[in-house]
This record gives sequence, C-alpha cells and structure tokens, in this order.
Amino acid sequence: MRIAVGQMDLLVGNVDENLIRIRDILEKAEKADVDVLVLPELCNSGYAFKNISEAISSAEPIPEGPVSRGLLTWSGGGRLVVAGICERTPEGLYNSAMAVANGEHIATYHKIHLFLNEKEWFLPGQEVPPVIDYKGYQFGLMVCFDWAFPEVTRVLTLNGAQVILHPANLVLPYCQDAMITRSIENRVFTATANRVGTERGLAFSGASQITDVKGNRIAKMNTKETGLVWADIEPSLADDKSITERNDVLADRRPSLYRRLTQDD
Amino acid sequence: MRIAVGQMDLLVGNVDENLIRIRDILEKAEKADVDVLVLPELCNSGYAFKNISEAISSAEPIPEGPVSRGLLTWSGGGRLVVAGICERTPEGLYNSAMAVANGEHIATYHKIHLFLNEKEWFLPGQEVPPVIDYKGYQFGLMVCFDWAFPEVTRVLTLNGAQVILHPANLVLPYCQDAMITRSIENRVFTATANRVGTERGLAFSGASQITDVKGNRIAKMNTKETGLVWADIEPSLADDKSITERNDVLADRRPSLYRRLTQDD
Repeated sequence: MRIAVGQMDLLVGNVDENLIRIRDILEKAEKADVDVLVLPELCNSGYAFKNISEAISSAEPIPEGPVSRGLLTWSGGGRLVVAGICERTPEGLYNSAMAVANGEHIATYHKIHLFLNEKEWFLPGQEVPPVIDYKGYQFGLMVCFDWAFPEVTRVLTLNGAQVILHPANLVLPYCQDAMITRSIENRVFTATANRVGTERGLAFSGASQITDVKGNRIAKMNTKETGLVWADIEPSLADDKSITERNDVLADRRPSLYRRLTQDD
Repeated sequence: MRIAVGQMDLLVGNVDENLIRIRDILEKAEKADVDVLVLPELCNSGYAFKNISEAISSAEPIPEGPVSRGLLTWSGGGRLVVAGICERTPEGLYNSAMAVANGEHIATYHKIHLFLNEKEWFLPGQEVPPVIDYKGYQFGLMVCFDWAFPEVTRVLTLNGAQVILHPANLVLPYCQDAMITRSIENRVFTATANRVGTERGLAFSGASQITDVKGNRIAKMNTKETGLVWADIEPSLADDKSITERNDVLADRRPSLYRRLTQDD
C-alpha cells in the first residue's frame, strides 16, 4: 500500500488559491499512484486568522464545501484521502480531519486539543478520535497538537489503528521527533503532513514524514519544500506489538497501576 | 538543587566489586556536592544473570543489604540517592528502585514493566510508581523499560512529580530520545542513569542524561565513559505546565475521550 504526505504552503483566507494548490498535490499523488494521501491541517483555509470573520468565511461544510468536493472526486479512483478542513457546522467551526475514500465521506474527526488561538475560532471536539477501515486496514485520525498528548496515539492504537494519519500545521519544534516515540511505543506507522511558509509571523516547520512501526523515518521532506513524498507500507506489520521477543507494548501494559493516588482522573 | 546521574560498568554476580565501584561514584558525587544522585538499575548485582541462583545470590534485602547500607550512610550528609537494587524479599526477587535520604530509607519501587529475561528472575511490581518528597520537592521513580510506557511518566506527573529519577540498564536504542518526549509532554525534569559495557553478549548504551522541562539535554555522558555528570535545577519550574501561552499539558488533557470504544481499559 502506497501512502503519501503532501507538504504545502497555503494562503490564509484564500480558499480559491488553496484549492489550486491542493489540486496540484492531487495531480502529483495520482501520478505517483498513491493509495492513501494525507494533507495538512486547515488546508482549505490557512491557519493564522486575523479574526473570527476570516475564519468563518474560509470555512466550509463537510462534505459539501469546495475542497471537500474536490477531494471526494479525486478519491473516486479507489483512494483514501485525509485532509485538515476548517469546517463550518450549525453549532460553530471545528478544526477537522476529513476522511474520504472511493468517492464517499467516511469520517470527520473534530480536533480535541486546540492550540493557541485556535481556542478563539474553534469548538473543541467531543468524540474519541476515530479509527477508519480502508481496504481492510485500520487508520487512526489525529490533528497536529494532538501529538503532545500520548493518550491520543495510544487510544487510537488500542482501538485498532495500524497507521496514524496526521494533518498538521506545526509551529513548535518537537513533534517530528515525538512521532518517532509514538511509533515505537505503539508499534504503529505514522504519517504527518505539515505546512511550510509563514503566516502573520507564525512559521511552520515542514519536515513532513512517514515513520514505520520501529520509529524509522521511511520518508521525509525538508523544512521548505512543497510537494509530496510516499512510502510503500504493509499496515499489518503493526499487528505485531513485540518490541523484544518477550515484550509486547500493549500486552505488557499495567492499566490498573496507571492511576492518580489522590483523585480520579 | 544539584542533581547527578552516575554511569557505571558493573560485574554481574560480583556484589563486592560492584560496591567498590559504587563507592567510587559516591566519592565523586560528594566532591561535586550533589543533592540528588541516581545510580543505574541493578547496581548491586549486574544484569544478565545466567540462572536464578545467580540472581538470588546477588540480591539483597532493602535496606539491610550491603549496597543499601552503603547508600544509607552516604545519604546521611543530607542527600537523596535513588539506586536500582536487585532486591530479595520473602516472596521473591524484585527489580527495585530504592530511595534513601538523610540516612533513612524512604521508598522502594518495584518495577512494573519487566524486560526480556527479567521475567524469569523478578516478580512484577503491583503498586503505582511512587512520588517521594525531598526538601519540599517531588521526585517520581521509574526503572529502565518503564520509559516505553508513556503512562508511567504521565501518572508520576499527575501524582505531582517534578523530577523523574530513572535508574536504567538500557539495551534498546530508543530511550534517551524518548525521554526528551517524556519531558516535553509532561513538563518535567528527567534523570536517566545508565550502564555501559557488556554482559554475556548484552551491550548497554550509556548516554546517561538529564533533561529539563522543555526537553533540553542539560547534562549528558557518552556511550562508553563511567563517572557522573550533574546539573543545577530548580524543580519548581516543573509546576508551570504551559507549553504555549494558551496551552497547558495537563489542563488541556481530555481524559473522558481517551478510551477504548469496544472494551474497558
């Protein structure tokens, strides 16, 4: 199975231009014959909104919005795409990861850990991060700052994810290395699709990457380029949770001992 | 507060020689005027036992055994020392971290995640990893392979630990980098005291280190040397859990969403 991460520069508030840039990535991904494509967080809207009006006017409903429709059409060729979408809903905006496959919308994840000023624009998600099935393999969804909470990758793994699909707009310098640890501690593949460029003084760190179940970077981009990289993976390798011949990263857990001593968690 | 990690080569099964080497580290630590010292896992016994008899004959009761007594005496000068001890108890052996301060035995942690052949020799711990108070600061105890389970550092942090004291005999290559992630995701200091050398074909990776709350390595050793390094830290910096001006690594957690969808954890 060929999995790709698309690294992009985007223009905040300019959905039309962003859609052109997304189509460019989709063309490249089609030529590379990828099965699974991850695009950055908020790839329809850009990131650093100046006010709530700009956030709202850049947002779109899933799956009716223009970027959603473009991705749905592209996925019709038997592909899975997970993209970060600035999502407009009747109750407000969400920082979402939309999953579409084979021309159908199969899941939307509302980011549960909002970063910095995202707390101004977005409602926090209220659902457990989802694991979706595609061609019999299991893909977990998380968005950007979710990396900082080991509980997210862990619960995706416990819920069956073999591959973590991770749209991002990374500002802090820690995530790419942390995802190595996430791979190792869960024996899962991870695919982080990041932004490059700057928006209103906020610099994105690029270095999009794919890791294998042993924490090796099997595909990576530099901190500036746009485009995509891919790797051919066998997701079922994530079913073997052995970190040594006698240690299993899930079976060796001691959940009854992971508790606060003074209050319920 | 000056915190040190002692990096050692040891001889499996030779408690007398190991005690000599421990005394050498204690002398160096006294000269360096350290307040808190961490020694490697199983520093009384060595690691790669050939059979259970060797494990038993290398073990000692806490705090009556020879290494325990030596550390108790040394700690009488107003110091805290945490050392990995091959511990003999009426019910069997434990891979333990013993904490002694000011000439008193204050805590023993029985390792809860046993690595490889440790499962042959040791009983698994049945208690939540402890957090101990020393001079008004809070220190969490974990041992070696506990690094692979993010739940351990997390629960130590939730239980108030400002500094993680981590005796180790590291064989896998991942831990030193993973502890950077552990520091960042919990905003805690960590101090990993590792082995060097080889025992019966098993090579230990050295590179003992101390990290600050932002995941910087503020002291480190190479993969071969023995001795100690130290850093002067202010443990209360770990009370600030801000990773950005609007994000707090504990307050931003969403525990109700970290759950299995199909079974209780």
